Amino acid sequence: MKFLSEIPDITFKKPLFCAILGNTLLSTLPGVSGAGSTPENTLLTPVLDAELIEHGVISSYPIKPNTPTGCPTPASITRSMMELCDLQPLFINAGLRHHPTVTCLDVYGDVGEDPRSRDAVPRAQVLFEQGKLIGKFLSKSSDLLVIGESVPGGTTTALCILRALGYEASVSSSFVENPVSRKEEICRVALARISADHITAPMDVVKYTGDPMMPVAAGISSTYTGHLFLAGGTQMLAVCAIIKAMGLNLPSVVTTSYVRDDSTANLEQIARQIGVKILYVDPGFGELGHAGLARYCIGEVKEGMGAGGAMYLAYLLGHSPEEIRAKILSTVNAYS
Amino acid sequence: MKFLSEIPDITFKKPLFCAILGNTLLSTLPGVSGAGSTPENTLLTPVLDAELIEHGVISSYPIKPNTPTGCPTPASITRSMMELCDLQPLFINAGLRHHPTVTCLDVYGDVGEDPRSRDAVPRAQVLFEQGKLIGKFLSKSSDLLVIGESVPGGTTTALCILRALGYEASVSSSFVENPVSRKEEICRVALARISADHITAPMDVVKYTGDPMMPVAAGISSTYTGHLFLAGGTQMLAVCAIIKAMGLNLPSVVTTSYVRDDSTANLEQIARQIGVKILYVDPGFGELGHAGLARYCIGEVKEGMGAGGAMYLAYLLGHSPEEIRAKILSTVNAYS
Repeated sequence: MKFLSEIPDITFKKPLFCAILGNTLLSTLPGVSGAGSTPENTLLTPVLDAELIEHGVISSYPIKPNTPTGCPTPASITRSMMELCDLQPLFINAGLRHHPTVTCLDVYGDVGEDPRSRDAVPRAQVLFEQGKLIGKFLSKSSDLLVIGESVPGGTTTALCILRALGYEASVSSSFVENPVSRKEEICRVALARISADHITAPMDVVKYTGDPMMPVAAGISSTYTGHLFLAGGTQMLAVCAIIKAMGLNLPSVVTTSYVRDDSTANLEQIARQIGVKILYVDPGFGELGHAGLARYCIGEVKEGMGAGGAMYLAYLLGHSPEEIRAKILSTVNAYS
Repeated sequence: MKFLSEIPDITFKKPLFCAILGNTLLSTLPGVSGAGSTPENTLLTPVLDAELIEHGVISSYPIKPNTPTGCPTPASITRSMMELCDLQPLFINAGLRHHPTVTCLDVYGDVGEDPRSRDAVPRAQVLFEQGKLIGKFLSKSSDLLVIGESVPGGTTTALCILRALGYEASVSSSFVENPVSRKEEICRVALARISADHITAPMDVVKYTGDPMMPVAAGISSTYTGHLFLAGGTQMLAVCAIIKAMGLNLPSVVTTSYVRDDSTANLEQIARQIGVKILYVDPGFGELGHAGLARYCIGEVKEGMGAGGAMYLAYLLGHSPEEIRAKILSTVNAYS
């Protein structure tokens, strides 16, 4: 396999990697999210991810940067790429339960609520407006922007958004066994609320059933003037669906081949329907001799915290696939 | 009077104005701060200042951008300069009681405590480290940085810091009648704690008796690579005293002539002792025919929210003193 599905014909001088952190209470429902040792602990994951990427260690909690099943977290991969490229990432707090331990650009959003019973993001429109200002601001300091996300439970909000906007989506998961029926059940109830209230405007759909990352990412996308890549799988496709529904220009999406190859999701089909270009990174984790990384290939974790986008960016900055793989391996070995 | 005391010989392409927001509980002691309708309301002032600067109106509270005595707030002046220069300001939340209504770069600091009874900024060292990262980050997006502040009660923490670091300081105030004895009394008790514990390291002095703005500003100053101007009076001199005591390179300070002319403070003397260059803007508010602005000349308000630095920056960007004055007048007239 090629490392990149396609090498884009772009030039840039000032790249920036940023990650949007957010929570949705859906991740606290048993069985929805694998991003945490317990359902309640999933709320803390974005904070720990950001701490690992910025400092290279998690010191605020006695925890290793591995998933409950022993895979290195995507944040470890993103961390290793920031080191390899000597990049300083920017974190954006879209709405978290816990205070981050790193500096964030904070829009002072709230944790996303359970869309089955109430509006998930009541201030979606405000967050979109704040995102627009951030996009303007970042346009002055960079000409290529990769945006990752850390939102446990976010593939379920993505499913709700995609379905509500008319796509026949099935979405990915960080579990090997995608809890499809659990997600479908949540989605069915959320969509019934949307349907009952005759909600169609994109930002109203986000308000009803999205998460706080989505309007911020859409806002940035609407004003950013450089090359923009949303780094993630179905969650970033949901953001693209919102952008498309608002009649705005679509950014590109970059993710790992492991998300594309998830047979329980239909990433490429949704991307085609939206009309968004999607690039894949295949880091070849199966041949590195690391059991935890190899499990990405059999469908565990797959992506997160912009890991795919971070590897993609490292390649664009001139690092070879061999360098990239070696750096990831040495980073995750140091944590073991 | 000349508009600027001195025109610096610098060139720059990408200016940035930023403002550090913070609280100290000292502002809630009756008589310490004039920056709010009641002592408790002073805690809200940085939030309202930032909202005014970003949106041009304060909509989150039913309040006009005037001081309790009817002077236009310094934030109005800063707002008018951002408009004149088409600049997008960046806000940094160093530690506030209330959530801002605008996006901030947030270091997740705490409100400064009363230094008479406990450590004022227990995490001063952490905030300094976060400031260093911000300085690195902003160096990539700008080559000239003006940093203002909004910290009600901050002249009292400045007095404590300057005295603790060995300067024979008396400090300015936003009141016409500077509550000198109140500040002296607070300072005496705070310094007794410092003395009893044999505290001399600069960041420990901040921990004992500073406010959250100070370590963040000092951290930014230590890593920022462009031209740096701290915009404010005695509060920014206190930051310079910390920077000096740490053996780091000193930035310049810019403030209004109204702070220099405050006979209850000794700004120029302290600046000479520290060895910091200080620039003055004399906007000639006495000749604008606006009663509230004219009161700046008789020693009310004087400065705040980087207003002096914002006017200075507007001049450097090619706007004439007449343009600057006219813009300020039209802005504050629109609020009346």
